[in-house]
Amino acid sequence: MTTEHYKDPKLKIFSLSSNRPLAEKIAAEVGVELGIVSSTQFSDGEIKINIDESIRGAHVYIIQSTSFPVNDHLMELLIMIDALKRASAKTINVVIPYYGYARQDRKAQSREPITSKLVANMITDAGADRVLALDFHAPQIQGFFDIPVDHLLGAPLLANYFLDNEMLQNDIVVVSPDHGGVTRARKLAEFIHAPIAIIDKRRPKANVAEVMNIIGDVKGKKAILIDDMIDTAGTITLAAQALQDAGATAVYACCTHAVLSGPAIERLENSIIQEVIVTDSIQLPEEKMSPKIVQVSVSQLIAEAIKRIHENRSVSPLFQEKFTIID
Amino acid sequence: MTTEHYKDPKLKIFSLSSNRPLAEKIAAEVGVELGIVSSTQFSDGEIKINIDESIRGAHVYIIQSTSFPVNDHLMELLIMIDALKRASAKTINVVIPYYGYARQDRKAQSREPITSKLVANMITDAGADRVLALDFHAPQIQGFFDIPVDHLLGAPLLANYFLDNEMLQNDIVVVSPDHGGVTRARKLAEFIHAPIAIIDKRRPKANVAEVMNIIGDVKGKKAILIDDMIDTAGTITLAAQALQDAGATAVYACCTHAVLSGPAIERLENSIIQEVIVTDSIQLPEEKMSPKIVQVSVSQLIAEAIKRIHENRSVSPLFQEKFTIID
Amino acid sequence: MTTEHYKDPKLKIFSLSSNRPLAEKIAAEVGVELGIVSSTQFSDGEIKINIDESIRGAHVYIIQSTSFPVNDHLMELLIMIDALKRASAKTINVVIPYYGYARQDRKAQSREPITSKLVANMITDAGADRVLALDFHAPQIQGFFDIPVDHLLGAPLLANYFLDNEMLQNDIVVVSPDHGGVTRARKLAEFIHAPIAIIDKRRPKANVAEVMNIIGDVKGKKAILIDDMIDTAGTITLAAQALQDAGATAVYACCTHAVLSGPAIERLENSIIQEVIVTDSIQLPEEKMSPKIVQVSVSQLIAEAIKRIHENRSVSPLFQEKFTIID
Amino acid sequence: MTTEHYKDPKLKIFSLSSNRPLAEKIAAEVGVELGIVSSTQFSDGEIKINIDESIRGAHVYIIQSTSFPVNDHLMELLIMIDALKRASAKTINVVIPYYGYARQDRKAQSREPITSKLVANMITDAGADRVLALDFHAPQIQGFFDIPVDHLLGAPLLANYFLDNEMLQNDIVVVSPDHGGVTRARKLAEFIHAPIAIIDKRRPKANVAEVMNIIGDVKGKKAILIDDMIDTAGTITLAAQALQDAGATAVYACCTHAVLSGPAIERLENSIIQEVIVTDSIQLPEEKMSPKIVQVSVSQLIAEAIKRIHENRSVSPLFQEKFTIID
Amino acid sequence: MTTEHYKDPKLKIFSLSSNRPLAEKIAAEVGVELGIVSSTQFSDGEIKINIDESIRGAHVYIIQSTSFPVNDHLMELLIMIDALKRASAKTINVVIPYYGYARQDRKAQSREPITSKLVANMITDAGADRVLALDFHAPQIQGFFDIPVDHLLGAPLLANYFLDNEMLQNDIVVVSPDHGGVTRARKLAEFIHAPIAIIDKRRPKANVAEVMNIIGDVKGKKAILIDDMIDTAGTITLAAQALQDAGATAVYACCTHAVLSGPAIERLENSIIQEVIVTDSIQLPEEKMSPKIVQVSVSQLIAEAIKRIHENRSVSPLFQEKFTIID
Amino acid sequence: MTTEHYKDPKLKIFSLSSNRPLAEKIAAEVGVELGIVSSTQFSDGEIKINIDESIRGAHVYIIQSTSFPVNDHLMELLIMIDALKRASAKTINVVIPYYGYARQDRKAQSREPITSKLVANMITDAGADRVLALDFHAPQIQGFFDIPVDHLLGAPLLANYFLDNEMLQNDIVVVSPDHGGVTRARKLAEFIHAPIAIIDKRRPKANVAEVMNIIGDVKGKKAILIDDMIDTAGTITLAAQALQDAGATAVYACCTHAVLSGPAIERLENSIIQEVIVTDSIQLPEEKMSPKIVQVSVSQLIAEAIKRIHENRSVSPLFQEKFTIID
Repeated sequence: MTTEHYKDPKLKIFSLSSNRPLAEKIAAEVGVELGIVSSTQFSDGEIKINIDESIRGAHVYIIQSTSFPVNDHLMELLIMIDALKRASAKTINVVIPYYGYARQDRKAQSREPITSKLVANMITDAGADRVLALDFHAPQIQGFFDIPVDHLLGAPLLANYFLDNEMLQNDIVVVSPDHGGVTRARKLAEFIHAPIAIIDKRRPKANVAEVMNIIGDVKGKKAILIDDMIDTAGTITLAAQALQDAGATAVYACCTHAVLSGPAIERLENSIIQEVIVTDSIQLPEEKMSPKIVQVSVSQLIAEAIKRIHENRSVSPLFQEKFTIID
Repeated sequence: MTTEHYKDPKLKIFSLSSNRPLAEKIAAEVGVELGIVSSTQFSDGEIKINIDESIRGAHVYIIQSTSFPVNDHLMELLIMIDALKRASAKTINVVIPYYGYARQDRKAQSREPITSKLVANMITDAGADRVLALDFHAPQIQGFFDIPVDHLLGAPLLANYFLDNEMLQNDIVVVSPDHGGVTRARKLAEFIHAPIAIIDKRRPKANVAEVMNIIGDVKGKKAILIDDMIDTAGTITLAAQALQDAGATAVYACCTHAVLSGPAIERLENSIIQEVIVTDSIQLPEEKMSPKIVQVSVSQLIAEAIKRIHENRSVSPLFQEKFTIID
Repeated sequence: MTTEHYKDPKLKIFSLSSNRPLAEKIAAEVGVELGIVSSTQFSDGEIKINIDESIRGAHVYIIQSTSFPVNDHLMELLIMIDALKRASAKTINVVIPYYGYARQDRKAQSREPITSKLVANMITDAGADRVLALDFHAPQIQGFFDIPVDHLLGAPLLANYFLDNEMLQNDIVVVSPDHGGVTRARKLAEFIHAPIAIIDKRRPKANVAEVMNIIGDVKGKKAILIDDMIDTAGTITLAAQALQDAGATAVYACCTHAVLSGPAIERLENSIIQEVIVTDSIQLPEEKMSPKIVQVSVSQLIAEAIKRIHENRSVSPLFQEKFTIID
Repeated sequence: MTTEHYKDPKLKIFSLSSNRPLAEKIAAEVGVELGIVSSTQFSDGEIKINIDESIRGAHVYIIQSTSFPVNDHLMELLIMIDALKRASAKTINVVIPYYGYARQDRKAQSREPITSKLVANMITDAGADRVLALDFHAPQIQGFFDIPVDHLLGAPLLANYFLDNEMLQNDIVVVSPDHGGVTRARKLAEFIHAPIAIIDKRRPKANVAEVMNIIGDVKGKKAILIDDMIDTAGTITLAAQALQDAGATAVYACCTHAVLSGPAIERLENSIIQEVIVTDSIQLPEEKMSPKIVQVSVSQLIAEAIKRIHENRSVSPLFQEKFTIID
Repeated sequence: MTTEHYKDPKLKIFSLSSNRPLAEKIAAEVGVELGIVSSTQFSDGEIKINIDESIRGAHVYIIQSTSFPVNDHLMELLIMIDALKRASAKTINVVIPYYGYARQDRKAQSREPITSKLVANMITDAGADRVLALDFHAPQIQGFFDIPVDHLLGAPLLANYFLDNEMLQNDIVVVSPDHGGVTRARKLAEFIHAPIAIIDKRRPKANVAEVMNIIGDVKGKKAILIDDMIDTAGTITLAAQALQDAGATAVYACCTHAVLSGPAIERLENSIIQEVIVTDSIQLPEEKMSPKIVQVSVSQLIAEAIKRIHENRSVSPLFQEKFTIID
Repeated sequence: MTTEHYKDPKLKIFSLSSNRPLAEKIAAEVGVELGIVSSTQFSDGEIKINIDESIRGAHVYIIQSTSFPVNDHLMELLIMIDALKRASAKTINVVIPYYGYARQDRKAQSREPITSKLVANMITDAGADRVLALDFHAPQIQGFFDIPVDHLLGAPLLANYFLDNEMLQNDIVVVSPDHGGVTRARKLAEFIHAPIAIIDKRRPKANVAEVMNIIGDVKGKKAILIDDMIDTAGTITLAAQALQDAGATAVYACCTHAVLSGPAIERLENSIIQEVIVTDSIQLPEEKMSPKIVQVSVSQLIAEAIKRIHENRSVSPLFQEKFTIID
């Protein structure tokens, strides 16, 4: 971890409430102290932001995942942007390790909102100059913004974990738990040189229960399920069971965003999944710290991106190969 | 209460989660059924809106107070606006009986946000065509919007309550609990033909506790404290005590918006205030239903405004005199 | 086909240059004459639009696919929107059967544009009030617009074709030619009650040619390849060959958008694909009229959508079931 | 007064027509020459601006009060902003010592404009990047802008005047001339350690003349009336008389903005007010230079703010205590 | 003049201060009463608008020339638009018979504003939905707006005057007083079947006075000078003298906009110009009513345009031929 | 030509497809290498841009004439702007030597678009920060933009050519080929100290062919026809003939923009015009390289402007006198 102080005092990093541990790691990697801001939620639910140091003319990076409670975290972010704009920050850079509401990214039925776009508009209209994000649910969300978006990928970090693991000598298959995630599975499979399979949830006839059909070969293999996020863990645990039923010798799961809401922890612990590899894009509270869960930190990746952005150096090297930072 | 059905099917009223009882009363007054919408909050905190009837070409009125939990209610409102816009509503009219974050309407200190303006921008940018509101904390908030705002006043309703009350034969004084509320107190005083007084909270010397100084004459009088909202009830209960100490024979309190957060109910019940007259702009949960609290409904006022707006009739008669609707 | 004249003269449909045959069918279905507009391209390449009838106060629908030559067709559309806006059309409704540049919908590499969003912004900023589109490359493109988008699906029309065909008695498999299209294949498979398979193009080792690996069971089956568009037909013909090699007894291909550029026709004719079912979202010139190509018209679907939009009736019935119009 | 030349040639200050004496003082305090601009009003009333030095890449501060003739001064300001924007100024900073139309900041009656917001929009849309203002009529006007506003206060300067005056040994009361100004009176009272009183203009019965009722204790005291501006001086002179009638031993008046239109000077001179302390936010023409009027300059305050803004130093110290600049 | 009452009460016409006589004629032609609005200018120069009838849902036409005093008239217009927007007018249609600041329509020198565009933006941003204008200084000003502009021409009205005049039997030449106005002269010449000539003001050598060189043949002819506006009348009177010196037998002048500022009247009266034909786009005060000036009214033209716009009928017939209205 | 390398690596110049030879000259003059960008047009007509070097934080100048094929060149420009914006360029400066669609700058008839404004909006909305242009068809097009426009003039370069030519000893007349171009002709005439004449195309009676009437004296003189652009060369060659018929001894033509579409080259070669002087604002393909055409380069002028803009030095010296750069 970097210990020297970052050279340019104009670079300031502030943490809001959603993921202070990650923000602290990022700030330490960059070599700055977190900026001083107090965010209070009053008993009537309103949030009050006080920025307790001058940011006039500064390039400010706000670290905030719009994770649970998503509306509070989103509103806190917007209020912070408003305060920075009125206080004459030179640029306002929003770092969103986990972008909530990402799944509402299209009208799947009549009269649905596209909340993911609404949120993008809200962030832009509030006054953000740039977004630094990690693994949007769909890459098209980049286009929901007309301000620059630097979009980092979690897959290389997850791949690194598997590559460092002796488990990966042979007989691995990467499995997408649904039709929409095949491209993501393909990408991980390429990193770790494995074939892929797909869970094809379908209803054989009308009025018959859905079955978890597996397309591709998993028999006798160790299966790695991958998704961008695990929310209630319903799909992933059913998929794991189907893989075991189909002859997989072991099942691992991984994702970038550990939403883990409602029954997720219980389901994962009761499932046949051996290990769940996640990143720290969302802060896991004490009670979700299942022994099955392994956290990989995105702090170095984000810190490196912030430094490159601030110094007008290209961020693309962070994508061109497996992301490795040598201390 | 009106029982005939409203003539124009293009007028639709939808209630979101914050104050369904009020929305039901408004819809009944107007003579329509509330529109069918489901709003679900998932275990990860995200809100999903489904509008379950066609609103293509309709003039839609959404009833939503941005009361506790303010961020959830605000976000629910914005998502609903987004859904209506994408579903081709002809006009989207936002009825906000209580406008949260209203007190953050200026920079009182360096680097403060102006959240009240941020919220106005969010509502406008999401796609609202008009706002119908009740007793903004400051009338200048009307100017935070560039879409038409019809701004209703609660004071006449509160005044009506007192005028209907035999208590008002004589010896009344209307009291503003702070410097900022004198104009409001003056307005109520005019309605009920009473003098005013002001609580002047000041610190006699540095390092000495603030005292509740009273400017104006309250001795031997029944005092009516008025504010636009009662939040934690700290100021108002201290003011009531100061009034009693100064010789007031009885103290009543009234406000438009019964926020009543944190210790409010306990404070009011322990205070010397005899009665607290509020409107139903905010839905009071069961546990806040103190016997000291009297609710006056704004449903007729809002219903009449909606009908006038829809029919392109002037809303101004609702302000020109004490608002009275004869059934 | 409808022969009565549409009742409301305020509804006007104009065709630009890209697909006049489709526009004529749509107008006939709706029951209106196409509006009179001349669009001239001068020898210096500039396009000049003249609208030769008054459209003041009218609800105008412009039919234009942004197909080849895409920049000319796009610019013609924008100029038309500008002319209509300045000529006081009441609403400007853009009907885009094929939305060009749809594949540039995200930054796949550093410093890429998101042209699909750029185009959405251009259409909106020029003054369009609404978009009616068919099978966007990604459904998230709906969110690239903040004006209402009614998004029609071509899959049911293609499914109808197969369902009307005795070929479909048994032993069918729907195949996605790549990882990104599995959801689309799943949808068609549901309509025609078939299983799915996926072509997994991958490089077994570095410096070794890509192979077309098939995930799922195709042996002894008739395979239907589906994609949203067929452009140069490279992927689809290779996929067809791979399916035959893997034991498929026959291969069909289908798509909504018959881009068919460059070597496409030659490749299809030389391929083992028996039939290519496409819609008329893009006008096929004489020279692309291969006997292998079967065209299904989207005119009824679009005409019905236009009528429903104009009459403020819900468009959703067009999605809830297989789209069938009884004459 | 500073005599050294300011170090950064990128900082440029321009004066328009409304208050050149103040602009000259500000420029001298900052240590720059006023930029060369000619502003001509032709015989048809049109204003023509010529900027006679390059401002490409400069941080430009325009000094302009939108005082009488307000529409000419406002238009001159907007034309100047337009010229600077088109001439590639790096930032355009609008310094508005007196913000005209400030009182039209809400709809007090049906169909009223909110001209104060209109003006804020005009300034923003013309291309201003920042506003530096002094004592808005209502602090909410800050929120009428979405660009940064640095809002300076005149009260400390007025307080300084009284504190430097031996008159202030004892028996002082600060008086608000109406209900809306109590907060302002309270603030001055705090600075000079005095109690407050309020003039409560009310009509005892219908069809009876309004009386100037005084709430609070003024008998035997020296009264200081404070308002943000004195326009026609009607209210303030009546208030002064009422204070004398109620036993005040002397009456002083003070305000930030000396509008002094119509009969103001005559009324003040004929009134029992002993002295009127004002700032030079508005240039007083010769004929308004009553011997009763004392001017306190805001030039040091504004100059210090400009330097702090330009150097990205916090402006907040200017608010935290009584503003004192030691030469 | 029409005497029947206009059928649709939703059409409302309001006059502001600049040209009430014209507005009254227009309203009479349309068949409506002018709407009730009071516009007050206070002694401090601020304008206050009160609209004294409900305009909710109405299509409002505001008649206002931005003539002298241009800034007051422009600001009055903008405030009116703001008031109408906030009061829920359905559409706001701005009728600008004379568009001030029109000559500042390009940067002729470095660092000049383009005030004509600034004004267009101000009108649009304030909330206007449409502009109805007469003879812009340059037709490109239409493009300064992105809202619909209906642009009427004064030339046919002026031509009518000459055609009705026996003076026009023979030997007429239409003369442009400068290089920029040749197209305008050509248009009038076509209407009245005459040749054209041009005044070519040039400096034969450096340091030699400019001479009025005439290009084209005027000897023995009656010359009609035409310009879009006559401001100080300097150019036009010099041109007239040059024409006489070159042998013209008589000189007439005409223009759409009679700005006539400063020495204009004196110059015209002292000149050899026999008659000056102008329209009433600008109200001429008593003191400018020279016997040489003949006014042609644009009221019928504008009234007809308003009716056509309101009824969604094409405005183009007003341009296709000499504008004649049969009563 | 400059050979030293430009000092600031933050200044980057990119060429798109329309005029690479000019871009190379400009880059060489400035002293930089052209930035690396690949622009591919696929067989379906879509353009794909790849910027192959980091431009984060750079001030980028894009050289692109929107010449034939205008829609492709315009779209390529917009896509490039989008890519630069998303890739975090600090400023995006669009250099447009020839601005296509410039002639559609007003509504000459009902229901015409104003495409020139549409294009200005498209460039601005895509994200351009500044435009550097050469000889707009009308100077008002500057006002179609609200971003800074630096507008260079070609006339001095053309004048230089004539001044360097011995042909110019005496008996020269500058001729405008139509009414709209007289101001341009006047400007050139001033540079080369010559009188002017005008071609007055008119129809003597209805149903009689148009004749080319000449206003002014050309007999026995060498005539120089000037226009901003020569497109199909119809007007200019007819004008030349008319000049010869009227006794001109020789005819030259010049223009800034050599559009030369359709029959232009053939017409020019068959005409009596001796020489056509043009700039290289548009790249002339091999087949248009008539021996009659002389090209004057604008590269020095544009390069000097870019350097001055980048260094925040005034661009106005480039206009104040005949532009001469000494190597």
